[in-house]
Amino acid sequence: MNPDRDRQVGDLGEQGLLQRLQRFCPADVVGDDGALLAVRQGYLLVVTSDTLVDGVHFGLGLASSDVRTTSAYDAGWRSAAANLSDLAAMGAAPLGITVGLGLPGKVPIALVEELYEGMTACLQPFNTPIVGGDICRSPVVSLNITALGEVLPQQAIRRSTAQPGDAILVTGVHGASRAGLELLLHPELGQELQESDRTYLIRAHQRPKPRLDVIPLLHSINPSDRTTGMDSSDGLADAILQLCRASKVGARIDRQQIPLAAGLTDWLPEKALEWALYGGEDFELVLCLPNPIAQVLLNILEGGAIVGTITAAPNVILWDSTGQNADQRLSLDRGFQHFG
Amino acid sequence: MNPDRDRQVGDLGEQGLLQRLQRFCPADVVGDDGALLAVRQGYLLVVTSDTLVDGVHFGLGLASSDVRTTSAYDAGWRSAAANLSDLAAMGAAPLGITVGLGLPGKVPIALVEELYEGMTACLQPFNTPIVGGDICRSPVVSLNITALGEVLPQQAIRRSTAQPGDAILVTGVHGASRAGLELLLHPELGQELQESDRTYLIRAHQRPKPRLDVIPLLHSINPSDRTTGMDSSDGLADAILQLCRASKVGARIDRQQIPLAAGLTDWLPEKALEWALYGGEDFELVLCLPNPIAQVLLNILEGGAIVGTITAAPNVILWDSTGQNADQRLSLDRGFQHFG
Repeated sequence: MNPDRDRQVGDLGEQGLLQRLQRFCPADVVGDDGALLAVRQGYLLVVTSDTLVDGVHFGLGLASSDVRTTSAYDAGWRSAAANLSDLAAMGAAPLGITVGLGLPGKVPIALVEELYEGMTACLQPFNTPIVGGDICRSPVVSLNITALGEVLPQQAIRRSTAQPGDAILVTGVHGASRAGLELLLHPELGQELQESDRTYLIRAHQRPKPRLDVIPLLHSINPSDRTTGMDSSDGLADAILQLCRASKVGARIDRQQIPLAAGLTDWLPEKALEWALYGGEDFELVLCLPNPIAQVLLNILEGGAIVGTITAAPNVILWDSTGQNADQRLSLDRGFQHFG
Repeated sequence: MNPDRDRQVGDLGEQGLLQRLQRFCPADVVGDDGALLAVRQGYLLVVTSDTLVDGVHFGLGLASSDVRTTSAYDAGWRSAAANLSDLAAMGAAPLGITVGLGLPGKVPIALVEELYEGMTACLQPFNTPIVGGDICRSPVVSLNITALGEVLPQQAIRRSTAQPGDAILVTGVHGASRAGLELLLHPELGQELQESDRTYLIRAHQRPKPRLDVIPLLHSINPSDRTTGMDSSDGLADAILQLCRASKVGARIDRQQIPLAAGLTDWLPEKALEWALYGGEDFELVLCLPNPIAQVLLNILEGGAIVGTITAAPNVILWDSTGQNADQRLSLDRGFQHFG
């Protein structure tokens, strides 16, 4: 049908491919050695960068001995989402992203275009343009995204400013992305899941939503006060532990308060908490706020929860407000390590 | 001697490696989800991004069937230089770079540190910090650098503003980098070269200097006037052709005026011009300026030359002011194409 269907990037060359991809970028910012962007007066520039590699961070089925778990569209979506999530974790509004793409010559052009379609679909609700980038030959598909945002200095969300007594607020469900990956890797599992729950879990993995929507709400109720936080891209446990380490504090987390995916708690109740804590890629925000502010944010935020409190004692303790489970100490050892 | 000598990145894990590399970054900008940078009031942000892959853009000797032509130090230097050169090509002053590094687990840690040493050595004269980045597992060493700079809107150097009559000024010698690569690939060649010339050519390839030094000079003599230009990273011919295409003009280039490397013209006179035009990686600036301004810049710039004139006729013609060679028309076909 489509004569381009079988064409590969090696047929087009770098210039030809760049020309085809320019339709994903605003005409006024590309075509020079660099893009020009305005940062509003008084705002700081926020910069964050992420590299994703086929066969490591997603599975296009092109890398050797690779299970295909990711369409190119979803790989693009998730890469953009991860970077927008880092901007949200800094309290920033997005300005644009750059895309550095490494491609083997045998990759179909259609796949590259799908990747860009996924990225732009994720960026679109936030009016965030692709402002530049680069394509080069590589033995493996790799995607480096640098996201740029802006934030007023007093509204920047840092990791190091949590104080004992702060409430720990999460903006949504944890563990769903990891469950969705399991269903993609092992489609024979979860036959007892309702179709809507299965779809929800898989979608949570394929199309995570960066929580940039939370930032204007937060700034409106907490315009110039300290907010501590980061995103939960490497799991909820990792986020809390990193925040406590950077702030030199500890935390008490009530396992009953962690919002888990409904389908997951019925399907694999013993996995639900583990995946919430260690699964990663949920891309929610984990915020430490004075309790009254956390309560106000909770009231206007659908699906969030206050999961615990910052303590002066440096340990991170998982306790059970129902008394069914003994206290546990969380540690970084089980966190996600790319070279593990 | 060094107990770390044989340790590999797989032994350390991502967090351990990131911690070791933090000494290359200023303490106040790293350790959060993103870096915070100030852009001066009235300035635009300039963003440029480049991906370099082992075995394609440099040769660490780790990729399969690969000749080792590049030390890790030089790979780091050249990657930083390429990105700073793009900032210079926009007329910008550098603010910082982010580094996204893809690494196989078997890479020695010492090699990664050398890479960072090379990058920081190139950045140091320009007081440019590494403000963030990311390390991930990858089957091949890849390096994505995003460089950030700032420029006053009226001082931005664009590609599309050249006008007939403009002088075309190059800031230095062309072809030396390509000659240096040839000497690295074929050490048996060039026995007749003086040692100082051989060293100069090899060094031109290994440690190119981004021409950020030219920018304050240019802005001081041409504070708010149109400057057109780009860098010659893909060869002098490519730069002139790209500028003419973007500006919808042509050019007449006098082959006798192109500054060639002295050792090269004696060693391989027939290659000197070809490598100057098509070799690439010299990272000089190619600027189109009103003739009086070009003359002033030439007087304060060591090693530069006015190589030709922008014309209304759209072709790019290489002519010979000595009359020894017939006119030639330059085209993009011989330019560097990464998927070629």
